[in-house]
Amino acid sequence: MAPYSDLPTPALVLSLEVLERNLATMATARPGAALRPHVKAHKCTGIARHQVRAGHRSFTCATPLEVVGMARAGVGDDLLLANESVDPRRLAAMAAAERETGVMVTVAVDSNTTVDMAAAAGLRHVLIDVNVGLPRCGCAPDDARSLAERAVAAGLIVRGVMGYEGHLMTVPEADKPGKVEACMSLLVDAFDSLVDVAGEECRIISAGGTGTYHVFGGDDPVMSRINEVQAGSYALMDSSYGAQPLPFEQALYVVGTVISTTAGERSSWAVIDVGLKSLGMDHGNPHIDGASVWFCSDEHTTFSMNDGSLPTIGDRVSVRPAHIDPTIAMHTDIHVVPRWGENVTEVWPVDLRHW
Amino acid sequence: MAPYSDLPTPALVLSLEVLERNLATMATARPGAALRPHVKAHKCTGIARHQVRAGHRSFTCATPLEVVGMARAGVGDDLLLANESVDPRRLAAMAAAERETGVMVTVAVDSNTTVDMAAAAGLRHVLIDVNVGLPRCGCAPDDARSLAERAVAAGLIVRGVMGYEGHLMTVPEADKPGKVEACMSLLVDAFDSLVDVAGEECRIISAGGTGTYHVFGGDDPVMSRINEVQAGSYALMDSSYGAQPLPFEQALYVVGTVISTTAGERSSWAVIDVGLKSLGMDHGNPHIDGASVWFCSDEHTTFSMNDGSLPTIGDRVSVRPAHIDPTIAMHTDIHVVPRWGENVTEVWPVDLRHW
Repeated sequence: MAPYSDLPTPALVLSLEVLERNLATMATARPGAALRPHVKAHKCTGIARHQVRAGHRSFTCATPLEVVGMARAGVGDDLLLANESVDPRRLAAMAAAERETGVMVTVAVDSNTTVDMAAAAGLRHVLIDVNVGLPRCGCAPDDARSLAERAVAAGLIVRGVMGYEGHLMTVPEADKPGKVEACMSLLVDAFDSLVDVAGEECRIISAGGTGTYHVFGGDDPVMSRINEVQAGSYALMDSSYGAQPLPFEQALYVVGTVISTTAGERSSWAVIDVGLKSLGMDHGNPHIDGASVWFCSDEHTTFSMNDGSLPTIGDRVSVRPAHIDPTIAMHTDIHVVPRWGENVTEVWPVDLRHW
Repeated sequence: MAPYSDLPTPALVLSLEVLERNLATMATARPGAALRPHVKAHKCTGIARHQVRAGHRSFTCATPLEVVGMARAGVGDDLLLANESVDPRRLAAMAAAERETGVMVTVAVDSNTTVDMAAAAGLRHVLIDVNVGLPRCGCAPDDARSLAERAVAAGLIVRGVMGYEGHLMTVPEADKPGKVEACMSLLVDAFDSLVDVAGEECRIISAGGTGTYHVFGGDDPVMSRINEVQAGSYALMDSSYGAQPLPFEQALYVVGTVISTTAGERSSWAVIDVGLKSLGMDHGNPHIDGASVWFCSDEHTTFSMNDGSLPTIGDRVSVRPAHIDPTIAMHTDIHVVPRWGENVTEVWPVDLRHW
């Protein structure tokens, strides 16, 4: 990767070539509406626009601000908040964005409260969020029908169900299809339990992520019925997903500058200006090619080169974050290069930050 | 803590009463210039103004933006970048802020490059950053004198030395004084090695943090010579420092809203809208009083109450972050209450975010 000598660091740097390759690989596997790309991974309408060009017009969001931001930016025409909100102002803001932009907004609901608040806010479409095994949001599968009845009674259109098997994203590849299918049978059964209540607009069975997108489909009576996958990380990748046998490449690095070096008798190290305030750390330390990362501090990462060499102060170093989603959420901008080693040609704001 | 029923979440909530108590406790131990509060912990001029009212006028910063932001806001009159920068634009921005506001700006240097770049940018004051044992920035103690000579030759005023014993912040209390003194003897010797080069404005020996502020001083020939402590976390605290026997209380929580609950036969849990994008995770999971935190996702924390009760959707829950510095850097605002349980009376922007 080029030195990016004029870039203020720490900086997110994206290769458009790699992004496009990742998007094309996924669009071949899951074209059009078969993928509902998750914008929480990048929080950037600039990237979402490229996902539209790759053929997707329906998107997944994790926060009301992401929904409103996508709608107001005119990116996509079918936005799902795959999360529960009980904030009346934010629910109303999503309803207003739907009315004023014509973009369809759907929210996940998993309780009487979330159904009632969606209806009260003027939202029109919901998915019943079903717990398929990850202890997080989602109703018990047996409760899906009664929630759909309550939603219909409140005037809401139930578009289907969603369930996220997040606990299976990194299980060994050989175990994945069987384990995912066990979760998905709960989701498909929940769908079948409520479809007569919900009517003809009830068609969506939405699930999955970057770690499982490839196990859906085929002739399997359960897996063939998942008609949307909510993958997000595939577009940019990180060291956690990169450790899996997935056909996507790292498209984004956090670029830092060497600010200090120490050549010691027993050990030598270098320090870059990339640290805890520019890296999501929940999946552990980041990765630097050819180097061992010692530790990260608020504004620093200390590392040594595996070949014993010592970088020079001012050198640029590319850091692969362990978890892409919270990393991007710490930055204001993404610096775009056509290919690794070329100059920055565009800056895309991370315009869907916060809530 | 009160429900803060009108607060959009996740939200930082600060008790002014607790903040003032923490500031008073520290100002009693290290009054005035004996403390150089580190703004990297809070990145908020609103909090720094209260530190000025507690008697401190010299501040520590970790990024050029923090220096420039403090100078332009007119908070403090002696700002130290306790970090190395090799970005000519940011160095020049700090020099311009010093010229235009009259606030003294000092930067840490630990190499020929950082000395030369500080001088070239028009900066006037430096501290020699000495490595006292943490493998990060700082020159070898034996190199401090030659760096001071180079700085003086370049027209810079050397105000003294700094060294951060960050690897000792959480060692057992009984071991702390001895271990810190071993580091500080390196720093004091470095100061003594260069003071004749640097002249009469060379007076500062700056070190320490919230975990070690109390071991300096007294009659010890080394420890009595540390005349500035760079503590920051003491103002707000976190669960990491809270586990130590320190006289400071938690002054800031991340407040979330319960968005989903599951009452299962074998286990029950609740989910709040506080997750990896609103919590610094490098020190591990956050803490919720009376509860067990199961795990955090991008926008969620799943937890169960230790007494077996189940929160209600819409309840507000206060989360104690494991590490305060990167947590605050993820948020735009701090919501201030006079005392826990009272309404928000002020909103202070986190105006020193980024670099």
